[in-house]
Amino acid sequence: MTVDSSARKQLAALRRSEISARELLDLHLDRIADRNPELNAVVSLDPERARAAAAAADEAQAAGGPLGPLHGLPFAFKDTHAVAGWPTTYGSPLFADHVPEQDELIVERVRRAGVVVIGRTNVPEFAAGSHTFNRVFGLTRNPIDPRRSAGGSSGGAACALAAGMVPLADGSDMAGSLRNPASFCGVVGLRPSLGRVPEWPLYNQWETTSVGGPMARNVGDLALLLSVMAGPDPRAPQALGDPGSTFASAQPVSLAGRRVAVSVDLGGAFAVDHEVAAAVQSSAAALTGAGATVTAEHPALDEADEVFRTLRAWHFQAKFGALLAANPDAFKPSLEANIRAGEHLSGADVARAYRLRTQLSERMRLFFREHDLLVLPAAQVPPFPADQEYPSHINGEPVGDYLAWMRAAYYVTATGCPAVSLPFARTADGLPIGIQIVAAHGRDAFLLGAAAAVEELVRGEF
Amino acid sequence: MTVDSSARKQLAALRRSEISARELLDLHLDRIADRNPELNAVVSLDPERARAAAAAADEAQAAGGPLGPLHGLPFAFKDTHAVAGWPTTYGSPLFADHVPEQDELIVERVRRAGVVVIGRTNVPEFAAGSHTFNRVFGLTRNPIDPRRSAGGSSGGAACALAAGMVPLADGSDMAGSLRNPASFCGVVGLRPSLGRVPEWPLYNQWETTSVGGPMARNVGDLALLLSVMAGPDPRAPQALGDPGSTFASAQPVSLAGRRVAVSVDLGGAFAVDHEVAAAVQSSAAALTGAGATVTAEHPALDEADEVFRTLRAWHFQAKFGALLAANPDAFKPSLEANIRAGEHLSGADVARAYRLRTQLSERMRLFFREHDLLVLPAAQVPPFPADQEYPSHINGEPVGDYLAWMRAAYYVTATGCPAVSLPFARTADGLPIGIQIVAAHGRDAFLLGAAAAVEELVRGEF
Repeated sequence: MTVDSSARKQLAALRRSEISARELLDLHLDRIADRNPELNAVVSLDPERARAAAAAADEAQAAGGPLGPLHGLPFAFKDTHAVAGWPTTYGSPLFADHVPEQDELIVERVRRAGVVVIGRTNVPEFAAGSHTFNRVFGLTRNPIDPRRSAGGSSGGAACALAAGMVPLADGSDMAGSLRNPASFCGVVGLRPSLGRVPEWPLYNQWETTSVGGPMARNVGDLALLLSVMAGPDPRAPQALGDPGSTFASAQPVSLAGRRVAVSVDLGGAFAVDHEVAAAVQSSAAALTGAGATVTAEHPALDEADEVFRTLRAWHFQAKFGALLAANPDAFKPSLEANIRAGEHLSGADVARAYRLRTQLSERMRLFFREHDLLVLPAAQVPPFPADQEYPSHINGEPVGDYLAWMRAAYYVTATGCPAVSLPFARTADGLPIGIQIVAAHGRDAFLLGAAAAVEELVRGEF
Repeated sequence: MTVDSSARKQLAALRRSEISARELLDLHLDRIADRNPELNAVVSLDPERARAAAAAADEAQAAGGPLGPLHGLPFAFKDTHAVAGWPTTYGSPLFADHVPEQDELIVERVRRAGVVVIGRTNVPEFAAGSHTFNRVFGLTRNPIDPRRSAGGSSGGAACALAAGMVPLADGSDMAGSLRNPASFCGVVGLRPSLGRVPEWPLYNQWETTSVGGPMARNVGDLALLLSVMAGPDPRAPQALGDPGSTFASAQPVSLAGRRVAVSVDLGGAFAVDHEVAAAVQSSAAALTGAGATVTAEHPALDEADEVFRTLRAWHFQAKFGALLAANPDAFKPSLEANIRAGEHLSGADVARAYRLRTQLSERMRLFFREHDLLVLPAAQVPPFPADQEYPSHINGEPVGDYLAWMRAAYYVTATGCPAVSLPFARTADGLPIGIQIVAAHGRDAFLLGAAAAVEELVRGEF
């Protein structure tokens, strides 16, 4: 067992007392000392505090009391999730010294499962953008090639996982923030169904574009973490009812006879790098080889662009407008532009976005009556140079704007469906490429089983 | 067994073949012939079609196949709920000849439970307003005193129930449309928790101010109908997860030791007729007598007014704005004003309403950690003269506007909590007065049990 072993293997070793939580922590701290100075994935690291928590975890196990499913496992929460008593900066200079008094719900659940908190994972400012850099902690680099981006916004999480600095990680996903960094770093991320992982507190309990979710190095670990995060809570009146235990193990489903639609670009909805396109095409062949009925179909999701951009701008303005007004120089320019984009939205614009979103949701429901799975790129590009804010070109053509290269992810966001980002291929330069596997809303358990089956297909090759 | 018997008693007689569905239908048609010419609660009545359906129901029972829980029971759907193949006018001249091709979800579920459709129950135009009149079918009158209003918008439903024209009824509730007519007609209505009764199709799946729900003559019948209506559906991605069977029977809970807050007006948030106030006060004494710990507390819900009015105007504009523009003379003036009130809302106004709504939802969650139930008036006034659009005065003081006399109901709407309107007293003139019993979001089953217990308290007196 090493820090690169699966989280489940590490937990089994803990439960069998083959290793103590303190020893497991030290292994991870050693790896962090080795890789983090270059990669900058884990921030606010507090080894002493972590050692005390690990010692307490060992004592609790020795005392024979009931243990949570993640008892003794080192964990670093995404720096946009409020953790009581730990620095929570949101990657913003405005919150550089912020220490919340209360856990947010996803954190409360993961802590209650028994993790040993060691620090935080780095994020873009307020999680805006799919490249992880900010003025508090700087840039997170790609663990496979540090000259490249680790993606974002859960970029610190994906990098730390891939580099063996943590065995599991939490994240959140609005425009692909769990899927894009998973693709860039060669790990797995799940954007759960809307309502699967409840959130509290929220300024608007009905604003459901962003969701929390799990990230891991393999699908089985991903399912374990989802089981801790998922399930209803009285604080989140719109959560789905299935208890978290529904998702505790992701047994691979048989792919034989499954109806799988594979689409490189949703019918030309976005530009896709040639190597990414080839990876998606090769997944069609692999799925066919596994007995699936693969077709080159896709749902019509054209309205997703307006839906996502309107709701994102509306949300950013509502959430950050007052803060921006009070601190006009405190935001990075791209985020400031996003916030200001919401200033002139009318109520009718917002209503129209929700109307179109309802139509997308309905269209996906009907699409998934004819299909079991939809396969898309997880990210439109491989990891791009870390010194760019976003990829300037795709296949030599200029990228339109800050959001245009995230469409493969945010078109799915607009539908509310669950999606796994799974490593599937590598570029000629050896950089990871993920595919995105999408299922019908609410079918997270089936999606995890299907992802586990695809993972078996690629294992050994990857 | 008569048409005034409980729905459960009528169903038991059907199942034991003590009466056929055809005979039961004829009893109801006789009552309709007797009362409906004066009351005008049931519209689009189609006796021949109903007789054919009843005959089919009898044949199905004779054939011994599985029968739905409402098999053979006469039913008239609210005229704002789309029923395939039946006139569905929404009380609007624009839809006077409209016949949908598809059931909406609540209708599909009730039909699948085996009801015999006989016609529709009358509504205000597009269910806007708590008094039931329109230019297609005219005015529905109060069954206890036909010079008075039956309330609305589910006014036809409440009147038909109270007069023995139907044994159960569906309704919907934005500003009290299930609660106000129940109070006016002396029947019970449940506004379920947000998400309890899923809706489809909706122009905006996230617009959750209005909900569907059941109405009946007693709490046990109410629970039976809720069990048919409730439960998740893939078409409604935000529905609560509990299956409908959770609610099939409402066994009275013990009131001993329950913490009940009783408030006449939420701390002066709205005007309340003296007789209604006295009824609410008397409920405090009755609950105390049953062993409950009753206090004169209330949650602070002041923001509910802005939340409800903003979201209502936003919703009406989004749903009807284009129709109004195309048909500028087709709407009643009060509804036209409601639609136009949404024209100038900004995105920030809507975001602010959702933010305040989230705070209300959270405040109610905390309130219900200290209380089991909250008792309020179901309607601020007893049934008012049927020739007024809304009550002009309360206790001699002018009512502010079209919505100002619905606050007791719509303040609860803004919280998302479930609420039962239960007959509790009568005015000196013998008109029914209901109390509104509210529970925490999601606790519909407990609320029904509590309502059944209160119903036992008042039975015999009422």
